[in-house]
Amino acid sequence: MAKTIKIIGIGAGDPSHVTLQAVEALNTVDVFFLMEKGPSKDDLLALRREVCRRYIRADRTYRFAEGTTPERDRGAADYLAAVDDLNDRKGAAVERLIAEEMADGECAGYLAWGDPALYDSTIRIIRTIAESGRHDIVWEVIPGVSSLQALTARHKVTLNSIGRPVLITTGRRLAADGFPTNTDSVAVMLDAENSFLAFRDDPSVEIYWGAYVGAANEIRITGPVGEVADEIVRRRTEARAANGWIMDSYLLRRTTLP
Amino acid sequence: MAKTIKIIGIGAGDPSHVTLQAVEALNTVDVFFLMEKGPSKDDLLALRREVCRRYIRADRTYRFAEGTTPERDRGAADYLAAVDDLNDRKGAAVERLIAEEMADGECAGYLAWGDPALYDSTIRIIRTIAESGRHDIVWEVIPGVSSLQALTARHKVTLNSIGRPVLITTGRRLAADGFPTNTDSVAVMLDAENSFLAFRDDPSVEIYWGAYVGAANEIRITGPVGEVADEIVRRRTEARAANGWIMDSYLLRRTTLP
Repeated sequence: MAKTIKIIGIGAGDPSHVTLQAVEALNTVDVFFLMEKGPSKDDLLALRREVCRRYIRADRTYRFAEGTTPERDRGAADYLAAVDDLNDRKGAAVERLIAEEMADGECAGYLAWGDPALYDSTIRIIRTIAESGRHDIVWEVIPGVSSLQALTARHKVTLNSIGRPVLITTGRRLAADGFPTNTDSVAVMLDAENSFLAFRDDPSVEIYWGAYVGAANEIRITGPVGEVADEIVRRRTEARAANGWIMDSYLLRRTTLP
Repeated sequence: MAKTIKIIGIGAGDPSHVTLQAVEALNTVDVFFLMEKGPSKDDLLALRREVCRRYIRADRTYRFAEGTTPERDRGAADYLAAVDDLNDRKGAAVERLIAEEMADGECAGYLAWGDPALYDSTIRIIRTIAESGRHDIVWEVIPGVSSLQALTARHKVTLNSIGRPVLITTGRRLAADGFPTNTDSVAVMLDAENSFLAFRDDPSVEIYWGAYVGAANEIRITGPVGEVADEIVRRRTEARAANGWIMDSYLLRRTTLP
């Protein structure tokens, strides 16, 4: 009897982003793996539990199993090696949960923020474990609304301009690579360093920024980067201090092509 | 009394991709705008009606209003001008529906395939009408699961590699621009020309291809482009002939960086 693992995208923070496919999957899960860590841990755990409470039928029983993974070493010189190392350790933690917290034939649920396909290690980790042959595992992935989709929906803008590409990237890569030359639209996630500030002197770059999008404490700011950058930095700093953590993303658009 | 317009992403073809936020929105709509055209019209209309039938409560009454837009001139030399022109005509058709098919205070629903933020003209069209001042309109956007998310979920792969960007583009732009130099991952939509064939001699490029993803007639093929390109072209041609239309997308990934 194989163990089943479902990686379930649950959207970007608004419980109503959950799809009916995800609801169906939630209602087959015996044990939910929780891997939260860091300052956002309590809030994100609460949101996961709220999703379960809201969408799992009253006649189902399920439990939570908590894995622990160490923080990524943010001072590491080699970013990729640090991420690899973290994923190895996270993989070991997940594998321990599979071995010790699941009976044969049971189904585990791994709730992923946003979409599991975008800047999330879960798919890679479960694939590695499944392909290792050390466990008899059946697994599947349920897509979810990503933070970028929540962002663009709330700003009522498109990700791409007509017929043009959009680059999805990280703050780190935006800072290193600059504004891409092959598109006018760049969507940025995981930016702890306000990398949009690099474009504050370029009047042709507009920003659509949002934090906690879809949640009650949502903040949205839009305008030419040069005009709104200071406000974003200030609101971002204040919100992170007030909440203990921040989840934000943004879209940059060149209004004139270079 | 303003008219309300809700642009509702309903996912990529599997009715269970619909989010609970979308279900809630569906249940406030008085009139659904239908703008389908071309060979896929009947199937897509049926899918929309199925979404409404499945998720709208029995005590709600709603109606459909059909707009008509001409096909884009695919032979047009200037692609952007042709799209602009199409959007102008589509905008005029939508505006006619708003003026003639809605009473003040009513709510219209515009069901968008996939996510309304990605290669879809609806947001731009409604914004233009809303900002024209010709109608008293309140509008909002509900995100949906895009075809690329359905694709990656079914292939159980991520859109991006660890820490790297992903470019979302069209077949037309991929053919014109080549494989981007700033990323190893390219997600391609709207490719009528099998533009992936350009990479069949590059052993480092893998493809994750899918058609009708999430539907009963789903087809998925993956492997190095050189090894699977012929099979994709053959299956794509057969499926389009059998169904009268095709909805496909794919992810290209370089396994070694140049």
